[in-house]
Amino acid sequence: MEPSSESRDARPAVTLVAALLPAGGSGERLGGATPKQFCAVQGRPLVSYTVRAMERISWISDIIVVVSPENVETMKSIIEKYNHKRVMVVKGGITRHRSIFNGLKVFAENEFSNYLLQKPEVVIIHDAVRPFVEEDILSKVVMAAKEHGAAGAIRPLVSTVIASAADGCLDHSLERARYRASEMPQAFLFDIIYEAYQQCTDYDLDYGTECLHLALKYCKTNARLVEGTADLWKVTYKRDLYAAESIIKDNLSRQVCVITNVKEAVAQVGFLLHESLKNQIKVEAISVSLSKNDSPLQNIFSGQCYNFVCVNDKKYAIQETQPLVDMLEKSNIPLSYPVVLISVHLDTSENISFSIGMEELTRIKKFAREVKKKNILVYGLLIQYK
Amino acid sequence: MEPSSESRDARPAVTLVAALLPAGGSGERLGGATPKQFCAVQGRPLVSYTVRAMERISWISDIIVVVSPENVETMKSIIEKYNHKRVMVVKGGITRHRSIFNGLKVFAENEFSNYLLQKPEVVIIHDAVRPFVEEDILSKVVMAAKEHGAAGAIRPLVSTVIASAADGCLDHSLERARYRASEMPQAFLFDIIYEAYQQCTDYDLDYGTECLHLALKYCKTNARLVEGTADLWKVTYKRDLYAAESIIKDNLSRQVCVITNVKEAVAQVGFLLHESLKNQIKVEAISVSLSKNDSPLQNIFSGQCYNFVCVNDKKYAIQETQPLVDMLEKSNIPLSYPVVLISVHLDTSENISFSIGMEELTRIKKFAREVKKKNILVYGLLIQYK
Repeated sequence: MEPSSESRDARPAVTLVAALLPAGGSGERLGGATPKQFCAVQGRPLVSYTVRAMERISWISDIIVVVSPENVETMKSIIEKYNHKRVMVVKGGITRHRSIFNGLKVFAENEFSNYLLQKPEVVIIHDAVRPFVEEDILSKVVMAAKEHGAAGAIRPLVSTVIASAADGCLDHSLERARYRASEMPQAFLFDIIYEAYQQCTDYDLDYGTECLHLALKYCKTNARLVEGTADLWKVTYKRDLYAAESIIKDNLSRQVCVITNVKEAVAQVGFLLHESLKNQIKVEAISVSLSKNDSPLQNIFSGQCYNFVCVNDKKYAIQETQPLVDMLEKSNIPLSYPVVLISVHLDTSENISFSIGMEELTRIKKFAREVKKKNILVYGLLIQYK
Repeated sequence: MEPSSESRDARPAVTLVAALLPAGGSGERLGGATPKQFCAVQGRPLVSYTVRAMERISWISDIIVVVSPENVETMKSIIEKYNHKRVMVVKGGITRHRSIFNGLKVFAENEFSNYLLQKPEVVIIHDAVRPFVEEDILSKVVMAAKEHGAAGAIRPLVSTVIASAADGCLDHSLERARYRASEMPQAFLFDIIYEAYQQCTDYDLDYGTECLHLALKYCKTNARLVEGTADLWKVTYKRDLYAAESIIKDNLSRQVCVITNVKEAVAQVGFLLHESLKNQIKVEAISVSLSKNDSPLQNIFSGQCYNFVCVNDKKYAIQETQPLVDMLEKSNIPLSYPVVLISVHLDTSENISFSIGMEELTRIKKFAREVKKKNILVYGLLIQYK
């Protein structure tokens, strides 16, 4: 949804990049039965937001999600339901490191998958429970990994870190300014991180928590540390789910999709709207034929957009608004959140009388009353355009 | 609002305990102009929730809130508006440690306040931006401080902690299991922490972040570390405000106030309701005369309760419901959230006919329609009670 010029700037130089999302956690810290990556946020599993954040980035070739064996089918159904692309599900091990290792093997060893994926030059490792990752930080860690072999996002510590003695009393506290929290995403030259996992001991695989540590210990690679933004935080506790829900709602309210038909004059209005709105809100403008079951629209629905401007020049505005309402209804989006749909009717005929315009608006009003019951709020705008 | 038997169990043995809340932060990490402790959560400043969590605890004698000089008046008006008791506002210094030191001086040095407060045996130090502190953990740190001289709540680390080298690359990572995050509340024997602050250097006062460290360095006191709950987290970023808001809403929806008049038969019903509900939700039952402007009710309004059961036996149920609705309206509570008020009318007369009961319900229905416009949802329940 970013303007395409930005995407081009952020793209690391021609490099095959893949992403690996460990999603095998049990969610015990959340205090619920559902592991946090599968908890619904605005009606959609958290992991689906993270996958979407990755698949939006054109320069990431393959995305591997590693889940515990009992969740393979759940994950596959999420991929199908939300129409995720370039994603493969891999069975995890009993610890985080074992799961990541399983994911890496798919690129390197035939026996671990029916499809041997092309071995990437750089692999991104990112938690499934960090849904707000942006292209900018992904690009930075990938470029740093190309240069240094390994790289990871860091954040300042929020609390002082202390060491306790055996008797449960304070032994010493660390000077907060000298240390950082190691966050995600991290990126590695594939050969380095794969070598590190092949070398490491069972103890590392069972008790370790830090990929950067393995690269250092087994490949003498000192990872480059990249200052990340506050968005990178990990959904760990129930309060984090609350926070994620509010952030997602906030983002959705600042996102609009402008839909026009393919006629030049109308598509042009869509383009102008896009240009004038793009500095204030996230806006996507598409020209489609609404009568067909168009896949660009399906993608937008799966991205859970809640605000639409539909520009048309049909004799009756409802002719084009009705199919959109039908598609929205089928998508189940209005179930979780009210959808706002502004129907802009361009009247390009020369000899229209004002009373006909009023009649048309009355018709939209009645239509709006009907669809309001389905949690879709339709507003009509009639523009005489010459 | 906790059953009083629990309060008694949690009370530390007869000790004078005071609490000190540093609230001088500038909120720069939040990215907003308002320091986070003054940000409104459900229409009420965050610091007010934390003060309330402290003042609810009967065995805490005085509560000192330390704010930066420019916020003294703001803090005083918050105390007045939300009817906080046993709270004193003290001017802070330019760093956290200097602010805490200023607060401690009020107990020990006449010149720092018009009122020299009684010097406590134990002082609790707790951040103003950690509103969800419970009596249990406060009691634990106070008792541990009595025994060890100092004590503090800790939590497991969420992220691995790493040290970076001068070139911005990884130097080493800490083994996560060996370290803990130092959180709040902390508690100290007053003489120990005051001695430590008197001894410590300007460097400590300007760059230090950890009170436990000062007690160790200057008084050779190894603080006892007490495992805390996930609720103790600090509101640091905007997402934390979102989370706090959701948690507070959640708590409010599971909290009800049962109001009866002072007549024995009616008060008895209130008592029985309290007993049967208290295991499922937080319930407070009070018997007041609604015609007077009663202070117990004012306290409940300032605690932002949104659910009420009003039990009465007046001839017309509205006679008692009306004054409560008036008070709720004046409190501004319904502005931020809908208030639910169940009006239970006990009919104890022997010879009432069914038709009179129906008439009464119709009257309540009409009344409910009226007050719904004010965001107060009234439901009537007529019980023939013999």
